[in-house]
Amino acid sequence: MKLTILFGGASFEHEISVVSAITVKEKLDSFDLSFVFCDGDHKFYLIDAGKMKATTFSKQLHKKMPELTLTNGGFLQKSFLGSTMHSDTVLNLIHGGDGEDGTISSLLDFYDIKFIGPRKEACTFSYDKRYTKYLCDAIGVKSVPYEVFSKDVETNLSLSMPIIVKPASLGSSIGVSIVREESEFDYALDTAFEFDSSVLVEPFIEGVKEYNLAGYMAGGKMHFSIVEEPQKEEFLDFEKKYMDFSRSEQVSRAEIGEVLIQKLKSNFEKVYRGMFEGALIRCDFFVVDGEVLLNEINPIPGSMANYLFEDFPESIKALATSLPNASKAKVSYDYIHSISQAKGK
Amino acid sequence: MKLTILFGGASFEHEISVVSAITVKEKLDSFDLSFVFCDGDHKFYLIDAGKMKATTFSKQLHKKMPELTLTNGGFLQKSFLGSTMHSDTVLNLIHGGDGEDGTISSLLDFYDIKFIGPRKEACTFSYDKRYTKYLCDAIGVKSVPYEVFSKDVETNLSLSMPIIVKPASLGSSIGVSIVREESEFDYALDTAFEFDSSVLVEPFIEGVKEYNLAGYMAGGKMHFSIVEEPQKEEFLDFEKKYMDFSRSEQVSRAEIGEVLIQKLKSNFEKVYRGMFEGALIRCDFFVVDGEVLLNEINPIPGSMANYLFEDFPESIKALATSLPNASKAKVSYDYIHSISQAKGK
Repeated sequence: MKLTILFGGASFEHEISVVSAITVKEKLDSFDLSFVFCDGDHKFYLIDAGKMKATTFSKQLHKKMPELTLTNGGFLQKSFLGSTMHSDTVLNLIHGGDGEDGTISSLLDFYDIKFIGPRKEACTFSYDKRYTKYLCDAIGVKSVPYEVFSKDVETNLSLSMPIIVKPASLGSSIGVSIVREESEFDYALDTAFEFDSSVLVEPFIEGVKEYNLAGYMAGGKMHFSIVEEPQKEEFLDFEKKYMDFSRSEQVSRAEIGEVLIQKLKSNFEKVYRGMFEGALIRCDFFVVDGEVLLNEINPIPGSMANYLFEDFPESIKALATSLPNASKAKVSYDYIHSISQAKGK
Repeated sequence: MKLTILFGGASFEHEISVVSAITVKEKLDSFDLSFVFCDGDHKFYLIDAGKMKATTFSKQLHKKMPELTLTNGGFLQKSFLGSTMHSDTVLNLIHGGDGEDGTISSLLDFYDIKFIGPRKEACTFSYDKRYTKYLCDAIGVKSVPYEVFSKDVETNLSLSMPIIVKPASLGSSIGVSIVREESEFDYALDTAFEFDSSVLVEPFIEGVKEYNLAGYMAGGKMHFSIVEEPQKEEFLDFEKKYMDFSRSEQVSRAEIGEVLIQKLKSNFEKVYRGMFEGALIRCDFFVVDGEVLLNEINPIPGSMANYLFEDFPESIKALATSLPNASKAKVSYDYIHSISQAKGK
């Protein structure tokens, strides 16, 4: 099966996307893969499979590779001999900005390129943690209470310590702090404001049980991964999470009963249906007193959460052959015609 | 002032956008305008100002005009003599799909082109009427109660007659019906499903007072238009609304007191702030028993609601010089460097 891995992006998670792409390349070695890199200037490059190593990008060697232009139907490669169109289905593996905020989905949809990944509305509701809360409230999925702080607006904190402070729109624990003393709050807020003008504050639940579940829809049916109880220190800092994006070893199932597994799956499905079709996502849940709370939606999980699937290549194949189409409305000029006629023109 | 009017789009509202662009051209005749047309195949053309008439497009004459390529910094026009870059600030005047659903905003942001219009998140929350409800609930703006119907899911109607049935994601009254008898409901639902797989049903409030207010933020401050009480039959059908998109005569103020005007403005501002910066939008409100309800957000109102502003060109100028920038995150390779070093490579 042919598939183009699209990675990079102008984002704080740029290098994480590079690591993710290298990992997915290994996991999908039975595929006929090609690699398109989006650099920090929003230029696209075709990367030779043999050059898919982190240093290719950190040393800017990609700039010597063929540049591509995004156009109707695919990525166009021009050369002296003519031009080649790369129009395979794309796996959007750009984490964070560009990839998860709806930009890349809009570009691919506009240029009529099939892709695995969240569509633009799904991005809005998962990229910004405030909007994930809006979604949860609207569809009846429970989540942790929260308060929003904005850079320009003076707001008083109502939650009591300890709390967790997060930039509204970043994953991978970037800019996140746990605060135990009120005196530390301002510093944590400033840290988070470095990455976003809106910051989410939630109660930090000491020793909370956390479970991760990935899944996707194919052939009209939900397909779930195993449930993992992630190994964690208090929470994953960026460096640990970074290592996490290169994970490729199958993990062991969380030791939980079927009732809880079903609860997690049912919450996952509520979030997914009608919103995330076309994407393989990972939902991170908390369980407090037997109650399932959605913590976070990862619409493009690190290394596509390959380690949670028993047969990852088969999952990607199933998803790739079951993608929603962007429906382009047919343009008509009926009213202009009828008005022109009425005017006798 | 230089400005590029971008119009057309692959949408049911394509021809409405053409009419809108022609009207705005007249209203901004003191500007140095250029015109970029997006056709139903997502190709861009540079349209000569003298050819800005409806028949240019309905007769497909635009295909003889220079084709443009969207690229970093602007629209690129190639010719035998070399290439010209059109990089003026864009006024996004594509109504409906493409323009109001976040696609065009994503494209312009990605390619670093300044534009007047809603950003992608703002599009998600205004293009789909369901998500407008999510937003209202989250920010404490009242709206009409609603039920959602999906193409594939059997749902029972709880609301009592009369009701209004709307495709979730279209403006301009396309596919909208008022239903007074339960026997008519299925037909109205099918009509709406022709345009969207999700349909919103709301109580139809007989003789409700309706008020329209437009506004934008410039220099950190909100600027409002006058309040209009739109002339209406029961509701505007597509043909009447179509005429509405060519409106250019200043309307008269609604005869309402300062208290209600302030209530409308305060609800408008709640919706706008932190979401619609960069756009001039029109909010349509209902007033029921003195209570203000948001009916609809028009993130790119027909002919930019020019008729509601006392000095429309000045408003556009103020907005154009106060646009938010898409902030591209700076890419770093710190972790890859540190890992490479740790490995001794």
